[in-house]
Amino acid sequence: MTVKIYLAGPDVFLLDALEVGERKRSMCREFGFEGEFPFDAGEVAHRDPGLIYRRNRDRMDVLKVGVFNLTPFRGPSADPGTVFELGYMIAAGKRVFGYSSAAEIYEDRVARTFGALHAERGRSLDRNDLAVEDFRLSDNLMITEAIRQSGGFIEIVAENAATPAAALPAFQAFRSCLARLRGLRDELS
Amino acid sequence: MTVKIYLAGPDVFLLDALEVGERKRSMCREFGFEGEFPFDAGEVAHRDPGLIYRRNRDRMDVLKVGVFNLTPFRGPSADPGTVFELGYMIAAGKRVFGYSSAAEIYEDRVARTFGALHAERGRSLDRNDLAVEDFRLSDNLMITEAIRQSGGFIEIVAENAATPAAALPAFQAFRSCLARLRGLRDELS
Repeated sequence: MTVKIYLAGPDVFLLDALEVGERKRSMCREFGFEGEFPFDAGEVAHRDPGLIYRRNRDRMDVLKVGVFNLTPFRGPSADPGTVFELGYMIAAGKRVFGYSSAAEIYEDRVARTFGALHAERGRSLDRNDLAVEDFRLSDNLMITEAIRQSGGFIEIVAENAATPAAALPAFQAFRSCLARLRGLRDELS
Repeated sequence: MTVKIYLAGPDVFLLDALEVGERKRSMCREFGFEGEFPFDAGEVAHRDPGLIYRRNRDRMDVLKVGVFNLTPFRGPSADPGTVFELGYMIAAGKRVFGYSSAAEIYEDRVARTFGALHAERGRSLDRNDLAVEDFRLSDNLMITEAIRQSGGFIEIVAENAATPAAALPAFQAFRSCLARLRGLRDELS
């Protein structure tokens, strides 16, 4: 039986969201999976936040595997809508995996975006004196540990894209993630 | 019986995290609740991301009510660790509530941080041509709709703080949230 995958990520915010979604679904088929994006042409047009929430949630309740685009979105961390869904699927006991086109560790990304870090009382701080997790992880520990401790992985393949929008789909990391998932197909079905 | 509340939020990243946590626990007692912060002196010192994750998760599994500090953190949205926990508690069927010291709606916050929005193909875009949800909500719809549709609320009280760190605890909104929760105590116990 073909394993269905919930495809979560900020791809929905791209102008070419539908094309990106179709390309990712096609990549899933290449590797023997069926990818489901939580949006379609109707949803992009529909503009009802309550309905979008319910539809995403319904799909997460049905599907047993989630693959999350964790490429940083509008800041140093993954898109909050995506992170919400990660927490949701973890609590529901689903299998979760991540991918990203950003190779930097979290603390380096904060330093590049917000200016050099400084140390005080044994903690690394940003310019607003807010502590920065310096565990050399790719994002907030709740994200990375949830995936690791549940038996998943985060696939990172750096892309030198010309714009943030071009880097956002993280196609190379997504492909690499699917290739690793193919080896787990029996376990996931 | 005293209702116990899981207190989630980026407060842990403040230099005075322990004092802020103690003050919020004390405010909980004032309103007849017992607040549990997912960190203590040991944890701030401990520096083991795997352990921190497991401890937070254990507390969420035990407690039936979560109150989330959704004040924007290092960008236009709530802290991703906090949002992960919101998704987790929603999937587990817990009662969830939010509060924030930021009065702006999400799209205005993006515009202020990233520059004026422009319109294309019927969508509002930021300067990177990434769509901005323009539903006049306080944050990503997954956050706001999850809370609203589960019967919760988000309490927002603007604070004119001198620094981002001073605005982060959102004490006024937290107090206002607790006052509303007091009226729901029978329902929550």
